[in-house]
Amino acid sequence: MPLGFSAAGLASGIKASGTPDLALIAADPVRPVSAAAVFTSSLAAAAPVRLSRENLRASGGMAGAVIMNSGCANAATGAEGVAAAEAMVAATARALGLRFEHVLVCSTGVIGQQLPVELLKDAIPEAVARRASSEEAMSAAARAIMTTDTREKHASALLPSGARVRAIGKGAAMIAPDMATMLAVLMTDAPASPHELDVALRSAVARSFNELSIDGCTSTNDTVIALASGAAAESPNAPPADGGAALCAAFTTVCRDLARQIAADAEGGTKVVRVVVTGAADDESARRAARTVADSNLVKVSWYGADPNWGRVVAALGAAGITFDQGLVEVAYGEHVVCRGGSLAEHDSQRVAAYLAGEEIELRCDLGLGPGSGEVLSADLTHGYVDENMGLS
Amino acid sequence: MPLGFSAAGLASGIKASGTPDLALIAADPVRPVSAAAVFTSSLAAAAPVRLSRENLRASGGMAGAVIMNSGCANAATGAEGVAAAEAMVAATARALGLRFEHVLVCSTGVIGQQLPVELLKDAIPEAVARRASSEEAMSAAARAIMTTDTREKHASALLPSGARVRAIGKGAAMIAPDMATMLAVLMTDAPASPHELDVALRSAVARSFNELSIDGCTSTNDTVIALASGAAAESPNAPPADGGAALCAAFTTVCRDLARQIAADAEGGTKVVRVVVTGAADDESARRAARTVADSNLVKVSWYGADPNWGRVVAALGAAGITFDQGLVEVAYGEHVVCRGGSLAEHDSQRVAAYLAGEEIELRCDLGLGPGSGEVLSADLTHGYVDENMGLS
Repeated sequence: MPLGFSAAGLASGIKASGTPDLALIAADPVRPVSAAAVFTSSLAAAAPVRLSRENLRASGGMAGAVIMNSGCANAATGAEGVAAAEAMVAATARALGLRFEHVLVCSTGVIGQQLPVELLKDAIPEAVARRASSEEAMSAAARAIMTTDTREKHASALLPSGARVRAIGKGAAMIAPDMATMLAVLMTDAPASPHELDVALRSAVARSFNELSIDGCTSTNDTVIALASGAAAESPNAPPADGGAALCAAFTTVCRDLARQIAADAEGGTKVVRVVVTGAADDESARRAARTVADSNLVKVSWYGADPNWGRVVAALGAAGITFDQGLVEVAYGEHVVCRGGSLAEHDSQRVAAYLAGEEIELRCDLGLGPGSGEVLSADLTHGYVDENMGLS
Repeated sequence: MPLGFSAAGLASGIKASGTPDLALIAADPVRPVSAAAVFTSSLAAAAPVRLSRENLRASGGMAGAVIMNSGCANAATGAEGVAAAEAMVAATARALGLRFEHVLVCSTGVIGQQLPVELLKDAIPEAVARRASSEEAMSAAARAIMTTDTREKHASALLPSGARVRAIGKGAAMIAPDMATMLAVLMTDAPASPHELDVALRSAVARSFNELSIDGCTSTNDTVIALASGAAAESPNAPPADGGAALCAAFTTVCRDLARQIAADAEGGTKVVRVVVTGAADDESARRAARTVADSNLVKVSWYGADPNWGRVVAALGAAGITFDQGLVEVAYGEHVVCRGGSLAEHDSQRVAAYLAGEEIELRCDLGLGPGSGEVLSADLTHGYVDENMGLS
């Protein structure tokens, strides 16, 4: 674990089931440290997203704690929801001795329900009291932000100097670029200014969570926060600090690891599929094409059936709104080219079927036009996804 | 049935099951009449789409027959597919005594497989020989273009002058605006120039098939063709011809009727849902918002579960890329307002649940911003959709 952080996770009672639903990450010792964040692009952004954005701006990129709950997204909750998010921040700031603007807040869960603020006011001081700088505490925090996730999500990386990066995250559906119903907090003991942290985080998010689409649905609550304690540079014989590129690389590693875990834990998903588009006119076209393929329900269901239905892939590419010449396109599942020059390429159906029966699939589409490339990580559309989302909220 | 048309439908053997798969619509007596068509916007347009587009351009908007097959889309089939579409047109032209450019062609079915041209060369003269000006023949044609459709799709309208409009269509999935894996042929005995026909058809398609989205997937083969025999004006005591507006209105009626039938026959669908957005900044924003809601898998699955999950609706609106203020939005299922001012509106859950249990649902979203309105007709996302599309092609 990076030096300079503590964590806690507990059950506040938001979830009637009594499973953990409140998580705290704090700088240790308690003080504002460099902070950066990337939020959902949704104009229906939830109250906690709007408040965290404001606080980060007011503090000039400094924060001492992140308070998070699952079980209720505090989205589409009007003025009452704003007051609830403010109450969460105020209670956390009071218990830790921080200023209001030095606390960030995240919520995840059902949209449109009000937070039970009184429960949280009781539980937050307990989370503050229980916090610890241990793997167990970090695990408790990761568990407390889970919604339909079936697994805790952790990732870590080492910087050349020996400084550490550690992250927890959650997410399983309403997952699309810009971003997903996902939360993640990255902690590093590397020294970094708010600006350095922001640059590294944005670059990492672009190459990870913004290349992830489970169901094409953009969430109201997405938040990725990075905190840098600088504690690794505080010891007398600390090595020279790493450059910005090293931090960026470590953040990208950690974010891609979490993105992969989210895809693997997709609601109802049975496969992780990486859609890679090359030969596009430019990178933006390639990403758009990859996303159109990854978000096509017909393509997603064919993955579920382990059906190499490349015709649906070509149809999606042709409808992606990018420069496209169907006579040049090549489609391959793994090493198996199934379409060349826009029509069927002879292939060994049994070997393709065996490849598609696996849990990790790569779908490569070469447009034969230019140097652009891009990719999207996705999952299949299954009976389980329907089951999980048809129930009463 | 409008005067001046004949039809036929039979089994050519493309479908191994032996169900009908070849349909013919011809002007009767055989001759080129005014014709117009709207095709898929996909850049992966199938060979028959490209050939029909060419023929219609070469003929200056005149056609004497439409030859259609189901069971094979002749899409993503390269040069061999182009030759197959040409062979279908040539065989039809030869058997009817028409010029090559006066025959239009449509295919629908699996993408990426080659057409069995020899079967068609035998069957086309038989279809020509069997054609008749009867409801039975029209029904046989409607049946022969069905793929996963469970019902024949017919629609008709009367013009003020007494001239008739009659249409057949098909479609059940890969249905999205611009357009859908759908075919339709409109026949009228009203007199109309190719230009008048084109204007009326484009206007009708904009208000019908382009307001239909079953699964957001744009097809390679969409085609809507209109033919005007003018036969109603040929009798000695015919009333004065209708104006363009009347033709446009009749075409719109017929196309909306077919669009509704396609939504009701959506693959796996259990409900037809009309998403109506009002109060948008402009009509284009309203349509975009309606489509984002209608194409949200989370929203579609909630319809299946009869779950009034308005939070997902607000989340989709906020991510639609339009001007949006979450504090102004109102969401209603039928007459039941479930969200007002962006948060929960008190409502009678039992009455809402009863409404959502029906087979026809209206979801109204008022954005509270301006005069723009738009709508999309859609269906729910169900276990049945997954079942129907996961199988090997």
